[in-house]
This record gives sequence, C-alpha cells and structure tokens, in this order.
Amino acid sequence: MAVYIDEVGMSKFGKRTESLQELIFEATKEPLKNTKKKIDAIFIGNQNVEEFCDESNFSSQITDYLNLTPLPSFRIDTASSSGAGVFHSAFLSVASGIYKNVLVIGGEKMTHLQTPLAIRILSKVLSEEEKFFGGNMSALAGLITRAYMEKFNVSREDLSLVAVKSHSNAMKNPYAHFQKEISIEDVLKSKVVSSPLRVYDCSPISDGACSLILTSGKTDIEVAGLGHSTEFISITHRDDLTKMNATINAGKKAFAMAKLSPKDINIAEIHDAFTTFEIIGSEDLGFFKKGQGMNALKEGKTSLSGELPINTSGGLKARGHPLGASGLAQIIELVWQLRNQAEKRQVKAKIGMALSIGGLASNNLATIVRSC
Amino acid sequence: MAVYIDEVGMSKFGKRTESLQELIFEATKEPLKNTKKKIDAIFIGNQNVEEFCDESNFSSQITDYLNLTPLPSFRIDTASSSGAGVFHSAFLSVASGIYKNVLVIGGEKMTHLQTPLAIRILSKVLSEEEKFFGGNMSALAGLITRAYMEKFNVSREDLSLVAVKSHSNAMKNPYAHFQKEISIEDVLKSKVVSSPLRVYDCSPISDGACSLILTSGKTDIEVAGLGHSTEFISITHRDDLTKMNATINAGKKAFAMAKLSPKDINIAEIHDAFTTFEIIGSEDLGFFKKGQGMNALKEGKTSLSGELPINTSGGLKARGHPLGASGLAQIIELVWQLRNQAEKRQVKAKIGMALSIGGLASNNLATIVRSC
Repeated sequence: MAVYIDEVGMSKFGKRTESLQELIFEATKEPLKNTKKKIDAIFIGNQNVEEFCDESNFSSQITDYLNLTPLPSFRIDTASSSGAGVFHSAFLSVASGIYKNVLVIGGEKMTHLQTPLAIRILSKVLSEEEKFFGGNMSALAGLITRAYMEKFNVSREDLSLVAVKSHSNAMKNPYAHFQKEISIEDVLKSKVVSSPLRVYDCSPISDGACSLILTSGKTDIEVAGLGHSTEFISITHRDDLTKMNATINAGKKAFAMAKLSPKDINIAEIHDAFTTFEIIGSEDLGFFKKGQGMNALKEGKTSLSGELPINTSGGLKARGHPLGASGLAQIIELVWQLRNQAEKRQVKAKIGMALSIGGLASNNLATIVRSC
Repeated sequence: MAVYIDEVGMSKFGKRTESLQELIFEATKEPLKNTKKKIDAIFIGNQNVEEFCDESNFSSQITDYLNLTPLPSFRIDTASSSGAGVFHSAFLSVASGIYKNVLVIGGEKMTHLQTPLAIRILSKVLSEEEKFFGGNMSALAGLITRAYMEKFNVSREDLSLVAVKSHSNAMKNPYAHFQKEISIEDVLKSKVVSSPLRVYDCSPISDGACSLILTSGKTDIEVAGLGHSTEFISITHRDDLTKMNATINAGKKAFAMAKLSPKDINIAEIHDAFTTFEIIGSEDLGFFKKGQGMNALKEGKTSLSGELPINTSGGLKARGHPLGASGLAQIIELVWQLRNQAEKRQVKAKIGMALSIGGLASNNLATIVRSC
C-alpha cells in the first residue's frame, strides 16, 4: 500500500530552555491543528531520553502530554538515526493497512547536560572494545577522516568547505541551530577536537523535535523508497574506513524499492555528524564515484544552485543534531523543498533522498520521497 | 496480510549471571538454528537498557552480537509492555508485505543492580507529580489493590490465592524464575511491600530474554488479533482505580480484529506485575464480570484444569518479569500450549490471549493467537 506525507512540523533547533515535552508540543502543534486526518497511532523516535532527561516510559509520557490518549504509542530507537528509524517503522504500520494515519515524532534534549557528560552518553553507542581503548565518537570519526583524506588527497582547506556550505545554507533556515556565516579560515582556526577534525567539522549538541503525519490517503508527496542496514559496531571490523557499508546497503535497497537510481535524485540530506560524512555519504549513495565527493562539492554541484543540492537545511552540522529528531528533520527539509516552501534556500526538486546514520554508521536508513 | 508464528525460544528466567547479550543469544539460538525462514529484519523490545546495563545503540549491538548484520534492526520500547510492543510493531512490518520473516526479541537484565536502584529506575515510568509525592510502582499498585479489595469485598486470604496458583503453575515451567510451591500462609506471613501488597503479591526483579519469528508464510499458529491503547500516566487522573481503561480498549480492539469474543478464548496470559492485576485484567478483557474475577479464581475456573486457565506459565509473578521479555514470554507460553508443548502444565487450547501492561497500565497491548 502506498504511503504519503501529510502535515509536517519542527521546533526551532538549538540550545533550548524548554523541556523535551515542550519541544515536541512545539513540533506537533501546527500539524495536529492543520491536518484533516484522524490519527490512529503515534510513533516516537528518541535515542536516549533515559540518560539525557532521566525519563522512562516515553511513549506514554508524550501521548499523555499531547492529550492523545488512548491512541496506541510506540517509542523507536536506532541510536542517532532514530528520527529515520521511527519514520520507517511508522511507514510499515501504514503500509500494513492496519493504521491509516499515524503521527511520527522525533526529538532529543541534550544541551542542559555538561558537555563531557553528554559526550560520554553519546559515545556509549560505540563498541565496548573501542571505548575501552579510548575511542569516542570524534576520535573514531577522526580516524575515518584521516583515512579518507590520505586516500583521496583531500586537503584540510577542502574539507572546511563542507562546513562553510552548511553554515551558509543554515543562514537561510529559520529552524537551524546556527545562523552564522563562517569562512575556511574560521574552520582552520577552530579548536582541534580530534585531529584532523576541528570544532567546525562536528555537529553540535542540540535540542529539537520534529513531527509529520504519514497516511495511506493520497497527498502531494509519496514515500517512494526505504532502505535500512546495520553494520559491525567496531570500525576495527570493517573492511574499509573510507566507505560505510550500512549506507551502501540502505541506499541500494531504497533505490530498488523506488525503482530509481542516483541520477533521479534532485536533492539530498546526508547525515553529516562530521563534515567528512557528507562527502562519504554522497559517494556511498552513488551520487558521485568513490573519491569524487569532495571535488563535486568544490565544483558547486552540491550547493543550492548545483545539480544536486546537499544539506540545503544546513545539515546536522549547522541545523543541529538533536539525535532522535535529525532523521525526521532531513525528511521534513525534503518535504518543504518538494512543496516549494523552503523560502530563501528553495531549490528545484521533485525527488529527494535522505540518509540517516545510527551510531558510528552501524544502523543506517535511507529514504526517498517524491512529488506526485 | 495474515501473519504467523514460526519458531520460538526463551532463556531461563531468574537471577542470571550472564549479560543481556548472552541471554538473548540463549533465547535466539534454537529458533535461528531450527527455522527454515530467511530473516529480513530484527525487532528488539527493551524498556531501559540504558540505565539497567549502561548500554545504548542496542539494536545494532544485538544485531552485531548475533552476527546478523547487515539486517535492518529496530529497538522498540513501550515500557514494561515492550515485549508485546515489539511483537505488535514487528507484526505490522510483516503485515505490510515489505518484510516476509522477522526475528522478534525481547529482553531485560536487572538483577545485577541493588534492589533500591532497580526500583528507582522502574518507578521512572510513573508521572512526575505522583513520583514527587512519594509514589512508586508498589505504592500506587497498593492503592489500586486497596480500592479493588474494598469495592468488591476481597479478603487478604483470597488475594493470596493468585500467588499460590502462579507459584504452583511455575513449578511445572522449567523456564520460570521461581520453582517453589507456596501456601496462603506463606503469602500472609511475607513482608509488607506496600499495604495491602506483600512480597508474594509482587512480581520479582528478573533477568531473561525471549524470541520468536513472525512470518507471512503459513504455519500452525496465526496472529489473529491485536489491540493497543494508552492511558493517562497519573492514576490520579483516572476515573476508577478498579479497572484499567488501556486494557479495556486494547482488549476490545483485539477481539474486533480477530472477530472473536471473550468466550472464544481457551487460555490467557495476563500481566500480573501485582496479584491484583491478574484479577482486574481478567475482568477488563471481558472474561468475567467486574468484581467477579476473584470468585472465578476461587472456583478454579482459571486453574490448569479450569474452563479458562490463566497464567499457566506462572505469570509475571512466578515465571518472573524481565520487562522487555515479559510480553513476548506470554505469547510464547500461548504458542507452547497451542502446540501441545507445555508438558506438565499442558491445557487444551486452540485460541489464546495475552495482555501486557506498560508502566502502571499507561501503554497496554492485547494479542490473540490461534491454531490453524
């Protein structure tokens, strides 16, 4: 059964003083007011509300808070891809024909914690062995980045262009965490997080929430393809650090389901928790040959005016990365673009693709949406 | 699309020294060895691995540990009904036709924590206001129990019969946490947890894991009906403490989907985190009139030889209650009974029903399975 996207909503991302419940209310208020659909069930994506917010039983909590009892409600977690995980899980429920209209929510609240504690919680997604030997998210992403830069002759200046583009796009996105233009020099002067990665290469710790309504009733946007794949958690066990198998698998499955190929995609949102990941993702999805992603960006192919704009929203890097919200925020950006509602960052697009990464690329999901 | 149950598996429940990963391996080993189905995706039910086990990214972790990458993998959480939540969520994925065969897992590891800490984590599922005023799970269950006993003239001796029956059944279940016969006197002499509830009225803190394979290919057992409902988290906001609206709603939906009524059910597993809950659940599902559940038990109607055996497994009370596993364990007990594999506790049954409660009855799921 075909599945379509109805109303969408998003809270402002950033350092928010509100509770996660309040952010989710902000993200769902307009969609719930504007939809003509009768909601049958609720799917909530979240990585770790237990430790970030000292909460449990989150599906009931949110359903109660939104005054939506007695609707059925699930919480879905695929780590940092939970926003996409919840979208896929909710999609399956509508495709089953058992639910006609479901409310999909993603959210995370993190900035109230001291950064070292937040980073400790974030790094729990890694393997025990790599954590034991001092691995954390940015340390391992640093290794991946170094491997990629060496293998494909990418300079530190080149890599900086990813963040420059993201910040430039985010300037045009009122929901973005950062609204500040940056230069290559700003990136190069920023503090080293884990060499060669610097502060401006890393997505921030953010708060935010998103929602949308999936429906079996036809709308202007169809969910055309989904792909989902896991991978060894330890990067030590992977065959090549310069590609991500979970992305390659997820992308292939999504294209097969949509009966499309990379050349059919007009716009993409790619999980850039670190700048390198945007480049690697753009290759692993098949948009550019391996090793050519950086050149494509340098040539402007992925800019707002390019042939395949990537991360028009500002990406995780500049729109922000509230884990459970990010995967859904990517899809909502595609929806806004396909509906010509992206204002100053509007591009021309009929078919869009999103890639969301769970953990350090151990649970990835690809999603293709198209105008219809 | 019809959905069927293929292989099932369970770890021994109890105070286990193994890790949750090892318990899940124990529960999945035989089903994965015996099945002829090619697994397409994995659904893992768990309430709070973050705080009980200091883990995160659990879907990838388990998929990797079981050597099942690159299969898609989700973690599902509906609090203490997560074992049923994951079953329903996985059901929807097979009903969609997108996945043909999925591995459904539920598990929790809790006994390694000191009891006060485990109880603190468990009580986080309650509402902020009730926790603030000193509510914890057993305190609120105590209020519910007192209300029920007063309204329906149930004596403390009568209530003890629930635990006596559960322990007696568990004696015949090699997977049960407790394998010890108890008497009414044992219950009455046991320590008060929260008056009128005593130790033997409360399900234990347990470790354990379960798994089964759901498939679109016909087997001997069909999933006939599902129902799912949330409810206000604060029991203060509920209209009547002697019934649970989320159970009533979930039950009605499951019966409607299965086109069956309570009289068609031959065996039931009812979430008895506290003894009172078995009685209340047996009424809310429509097996007995409100206020008659205790009499039905006293008359032996819910015993192994009765017209509607309830909790033949020993229930949460005596089989144990490893949160994310419990809902799935109930369904597996029904499967064993329907397949005539329940050995010394075997009853005659073609249609079975399970009720799983999330939190303090804020996210409940009912499931009907039948021989075919």
